[in-house]
Amino acid sequence: MVKRNPHVAKLQAGYLFPEIIRRKRAFLEKNPHAHVINLGIGDTTEPLPASIAQQLAQSAQALGTREGYTGYGLEEGQYALRQLIAERLYQKRFEADEVFISDGTNPDIGRLQVLFGNQVTIAVQDPSYPVYIDSAVILGQTGEYHVPTRQYKGITYLLCTPANDFFPSLAHAPRTDLIYFCSPNNPTGAVATYAQLEELVAFARKNHSIIIYDTAYAAYIQEKEIPRSIYEIPGADQVAIELGSFSKMAGFTGVRLGWSVVPKALCFEEGYSVHADWTRVHTTLFNGASNIVQAGGMAALQPEGQQGIQALIRFYMENVRLLRQTFEERGYAVYGGVNAPYLWVHFPHQTSWQAFEALLEKTQIVCAPGSGFGPAGENFLRFSAFGNRAHILEAVERLRQYL
Amino acid sequence: MVKRNPHVAKLQAGYLFPEIIRRKRAFLEKNPHAHVINLGIGDTTEPLPASIAQQLAQSAQALGTREGYTGYGLEEGQYALRQLIAERLYQKRFEADEVFISDGTNPDIGRLQVLFGNQVTIAVQDPSYPVYIDSAVILGQTGEYHVPTRQYKGITYLLCTPANDFFPSLAHAPRTDLIYFCSPNNPTGAVATYAQLEELVAFARKNHSIIIYDTAYAAYIQEKEIPRSIYEIPGADQVAIELGSFSKMAGFTGVRLGWSVVPKALCFEEGYSVHADWTRVHTTLFNGASNIVQAGGMAALQPEGQQGIQALIRFYMENVRLLRQTFEERGYAVYGGVNAPYLWVHFPHQTSWQAFEALLEKTQIVCAPGSGFGPAGENFLRFSAFGNRAHILEAVERLRQYL
Repeated sequence: MVKRNPHVAKLQAGYLFPEIIRRKRAFLEKNPHAHVINLGIGDTTEPLPASIAQQLAQSAQALGTREGYTGYGLEEGQYALRQLIAERLYQKRFEADEVFISDGTNPDIGRLQVLFGNQVTIAVQDPSYPVYIDSAVILGQTGEYHVPTRQYKGITYLLCTPANDFFPSLAHAPRTDLIYFCSPNNPTGAVATYAQLEELVAFARKNHSIIIYDTAYAAYIQEKEIPRSIYEIPGADQVAIELGSFSKMAGFTGVRLGWSVVPKALCFEEGYSVHADWTRVHTTLFNGASNIVQAGGMAALQPEGQQGIQALIRFYMENVRLLRQTFEERGYAVYGGVNAPYLWVHFPHQTSWQAFEALLEKTQIVCAPGSGFGPAGENFLRFSAFGNRAHILEAVERLRQYL
Repeated sequence: MVKRNPHVAKLQAGYLFPEIIRRKRAFLEKNPHAHVINLGIGDTTEPLPASIAQQLAQSAQALGTREGYTGYGLEEGQYALRQLIAERLYQKRFEADEVFISDGTNPDIGRLQVLFGNQVTIAVQDPSYPVYIDSAVILGQTGEYHVPTRQYKGITYLLCTPANDFFPSLAHAPRTDLIYFCSPNNPTGAVATYAQLEELVAFARKNHSIIIYDTAYAAYIQEKEIPRSIYEIPGADQVAIELGSFSKMAGFTGVRLGWSVVPKALCFEEGYSVHADWTRVHTTLFNGASNIVQAGGMAALQPEGQQGIQALIRFYMENVRLLRQTFEERGYAVYGGVNAPYLWVHFPHQTSWQAFEALLEKTQIVCAPGSGFGPAGENFLRFSAFGNRAHILEAVERLRQYL
C-alpha cells in the first residue's frame, strides 16, 4: 500500500487557528447564548474601499462581454500590476519581472519551500507565524518534534522576547540556509529598526544565507524611521526574498492576492539564478491569481484606493490603541500595537492555553494563545485589533472588569 | 552558500506552453504583420454566461458593504459550494467535506505531490499533461532525465497510442504508488470507457495504488455511456482521488476555481486516513479560493449557469468538429474531438516541432507539439478548439490550402 508521508506524520496536533475555532465552538455548545468577541485570528472586518470593490465588480462583469473576456494570464501575474508594485511599493528598486503575483503569502511560503527543497537548513523567529515551521516540516526540512523543548529538530529557533526587544541575538546564532523574518511581527507586533535590519542583512551576507522577509503587516507601520521593506538596506537584494500581501493592507483576506519579490541579484552556490528557478517553480505549481482579483489589486494601488486603505488602517490602529490602553491601565506588560495590529500581552502566572480558556470563560473573548506560535510564546496571549468598533469597545469594557 | 535544489535542476528545458509562446513571439518578430491564429494552449475565449458574470460582480460589490463583507473563509472552501458539487456533480456519492475547493487543478497537483512526499513511485500516461511530471520532478519523486528515451528515471510511462486506443496495457504494467490518469485526455482527446475504468480501478485495487484522476475536461463528454467520474466505478472511492475544474467547464481559466475529491474511504498503509492528511496539507499550504470566485462557482452550478455552460460547450464542440473534418478530408489520421475539445493529429514524416514550425510558417497557426507531452507524443500535433468561430473558420481555410 501507499505509505503515509513521514514528514506529514511529524506535524504536532492541529494547525493553531483551526484549534482556536474548535475551542470556541466547544465553548458555544456549552454556552449557546454567549456573545463571543473574536480577537483571535487576524481577520479583516471592514468593507473594502469603494473604488476597489467597484473595480473588482467591473472586472468581473467584463468577463461576461466579448470585449472584456480574458482567459489564462501569465502565471507570474499581469505586467501592469507587477510594474505598479515595483513603482509604488519599491520606488522602482526592481524591474516589474522581479515581482511575482500570487494568491497570498501563505501559498507563496509553500511554493518557496518546494523551490528550496528538503536539504536546506532553516531558522525562524521564536515565536513566529506557524506556517513557516509547518510547511518546512511537511516538506521534510526538519527532524522529529521534541516534546520537552516543543521544538522540531533541525530548525534553529531565534529567541525573540522582551529581554532582547524581540530581535534575536545574531552574534551567537548558527548559520542556516534560510532565515524567516517577519516585521511587523506576527504574533508579537514588534518591528525591526533600520539598524537591526542592517545587522540581519550583514549576518546573512556573512553566512551566505537567504532571508525570507515577510511584510504582510508593513502597511501598519506608523513610525517614519521604521523600514517597510528589507530592500531599504543596501545589499539586501543579494540575500533576501520579500513577501507582500494585500490581505491586511487592503482587506483582501478573502479576496486573495499577494506577491513575492525575488531579485535577479540573488544567487545559489555557483551563481545559479534563484529568480530563474523561482520562475520555473512558480509557473509550474501555480496558474496565476484570479484576473478579477488582480484588477482589484491595481485599484488598491491607485491614489483613491490608497486613501481608502489609509482610512482602514487608521481605523484598526485606533482599535489597537484602545486595547493596548486597557491592558496598560491594568498594569499588564504589553508589546506591539504601535506599528502593528497585534498586541502581545504577558500573563506570567498562566500557560497561554490556561489564560486563553480563562479569558474565554470569564469575558467571552477569543484571542490567540502565544504558545501556538512557538515555545517562546508561552505565557503570552496575542490580541488582534481587527473588528468593528462596537465589538472592540465591548471587549475593552469586559477586559476592564476582568483584568 | 545555499545550494540549488537538485530536483529543480533536473527539469529539462522550459515548460511546454511558455516555449510555444516564445516561438510564436520569435515568429512575430520576423513577420510583424502575420495574423497568427492560436490553436495551441487550451484557453477559453468566449464570454462567461451572464448569470455567472453577474454573480461574480455582485459578490465583489458586496465586499464594499458592511453587510456583505467577508474575510477569511475556510481553507477547504465554502460549505455550500462543496455541498453543491457533491450533489450536482457527484449525485451525493460524497459528503460535502470530502470535496476541497481550490484555485485550480494545476495548484492542486502541486499540493498533492507535497502530500505524498518524495518517496512514492508514480506512473503517468504517455503522452500526458506536463505538470504531472514536472511537479513530480521538482518534488524529487524521480531520477535524472534520460536523453535517449526522453524519460525521467523512476517514472513509469504508460504508453497510450492509436494501437491501444490510447488506453495503457495494464497487464504488463509495474505497480506504482500513484497513477495519474486524465479522461477526457489532454492531449489526445481520448476518453476511457466504463470497461477500461473498471480495469484501471481493479489494477489499482490489486496493487494498492492510488489513482489521481483528472477530469478537467469531463464537461465535454458527449456520449452518454462514457463515465464523467471515476467514482462511477464501484470501489473507486477506496483507490482514487479526483480533480475537477471550472476552467474549461465554465470558462474560468482566468477566474481560477477547481476542486479535489478525497474520499474518507481512501487509506494509506496501516489505515491512516488520506483525507485527514490532505486536510492538514491543504489548509496549511493554501488559504482558500477567492470568496468572489467561489460565488461565481455557485452560480455556475445553478440551472441558469448550467444552461449557459452547455451553450459554451456546444460552441467549442462545433469548433472541434469543423477542425476534425478538415484533417479527415485531407486524409490525416486524427483522434479526439468527439468527447473533448482537443484533436490529436498524426504527422508521420516530421517530428512534432518540425511539423509545428512548418505549420506556423505556412499557415500562421500555432498548435502544441505532441512531443511536449511525452515521448509517445512524437509525430503528433495537438489542436485546441477554443477560439471564436471566425478564427476557427479562417484556420480551416488555411489548413485546407496547406494540408
